[in-house]
Amino acid sequence: MSTEPTASGHEAASPAVDPPAWLQRIKSNYCRVCGSPLKLLKPDGEREWRHVCGSCGYVDYHNPKLVVGCIVEHEGKILLCRRAIEPCRGLWTLPAGFMELNESTAAGAARETWEEANAAVKVLAPYAHWDIPVIGQAYILFRAALAPPYTFSSGSESLEVALFAPESIPFDQLAFSSVSITLRLYLEDLRAGTFRLHHGVIDKRPGSQPNDPGAFVVRDHMALELGGASATAAGPGVQEQ
Amino acid sequence: MSTEPTASGHEAASPAVDPPAWLQRIKSNYCRVCGSPLKLLKPDGEREWRHVCGSCGYVDYHNPKLVVGCIVEHEGKILLCRRAIEPCRGLWTLPAGFMELNESTAAGAARETWEEANAAVKVLAPYAHWDIPVIGQAYILFRAALAPPYTFSSGSESLEVALFAPESIPFDQLAFSSVSITLRLYLEDLRAGTFRLHHGVIDKRPGSQPNDPGAFVVRDHMALELGGASATAAGPGVQEQ
Repeated sequence: MSTEPTASGHEAASPAVDPPAWLQRIKSNYCRVCGSPLKLLKPDGEREWRHVCGSCGYVDYHNPKLVVGCIVEHEGKILLCRRAIEPCRGLWTLPAGFMELNESTAAGAARETWEEANAAVKVLAPYAHWDIPVIGQAYILFRAALAPPYTFSSGSESLEVALFAPESIPFDQLAFSSVSITLRLYLEDLRAGTFRLHHGVIDKRPGSQPNDPGAFVVRDHMALELGGASATAAGPGVQEQ
Repeated sequence: MSTEPTASGHEAASPAVDPPAWLQRIKSNYCRVCGSPLKLLKPDGEREWRHVCGSCGYVDYHNPKLVVGCIVEHEGKILLCRRAIEPCRGLWTLPAGFMELNESTAAGAARETWEEANAAVKVLAPYAHWDIPVIGQAYILFRAALAPPYTFSSGSESLEVALFAPESIPFDQLAFSSVSITLRLYLEDLRAGTFRLHHGVIDKRPGSQPNDPGAFVVRDHMALELGGASATAAGPGVQEQ
């Protein structure tokens, strides 16, 4: 993929005169430190518009959030959760959620799997990284194996939890673009007999529903072929140090 | 690596009675939406303590931030920037910085390289992901090649920018643990003739300086062997789709 920057080094140059509309929509009105009103301005030496406190000078930066989760394998099947909460209540997803401070991505992915599916897992390897700029999220999904006692059940955010054989994955009832794309690639890799490491960008049509068909495209997909990794639904397959 | 969760699914269980000290240290005093005071409490159905607005109910979540950057290769050498700003003013680093909303990790890494080194690059492949829980950051570093017109110079945050042969990298004058660890592995991979994909956790001793020797350890290091990737300091070496 090519990411040769424009003169400003940005995918989309910042407007010179007004802050971008998406920034104006962020509800950042008051300073979290001193409670004074924030103003949108370009601080000295910065290219970007920021929410800045007129009183104490605090800058309220807005950064992408990490969503972490697991593709849990057990006896050739993949664990999915049917969502009990919005968005996409009733649809199936991989166990995943926002990474917390004070944990690693792998630990966060295991924690989310525990919370949503009451399943203990062994994290095997990173599998996919998807940036979704329009919603300010980056997904990191790991391959994992169900761990002793090899049990699972619905957490508070799930209506049900089940293991699906690759050919039975309900692609027409999946909750999110990132989940749909990841599972399609995962099945491709299983068929090819080798797991790859996937990295790319999901562009969503602003305002579209989370899994609206045709509402998203993958671009800048980098698929790194792994050496010595035999793809079986339950095998570890990667070097661990 | 093993990430079998404890009963709570956490690396460190939350105290039952008081919010953790690190959370109490975060200056989250007022609601960014309505300006009312925030309180630390456990919302209904949540395991974690949160800063919650007593007036409008807004929850001020704190999430890890992504730092993105490039290992830029050109004619067998690696591009480093000497920092003009704190922390670690005067020490050398890979071009990297906080990912912004509205961009991808790869585009952010190219943007930071443009801002700090006035260098256009072609991003080749992800190379390393490091979680640093104690400072709430996740580093994502890409391999990249210097792109036309193959020039570079100091950006406003750099004192100087230079290309270093692998044997000349100033390991005793590097700015950050993540940079030091990444460059050591990169040289290992160059010597072995194959790039790997690295993922792991950097544990820092709280309160230590950014590159204090012995102040950090790498744990849960997963090194994924890549197939068909010939490691030369300038070659692409990965499948691009």
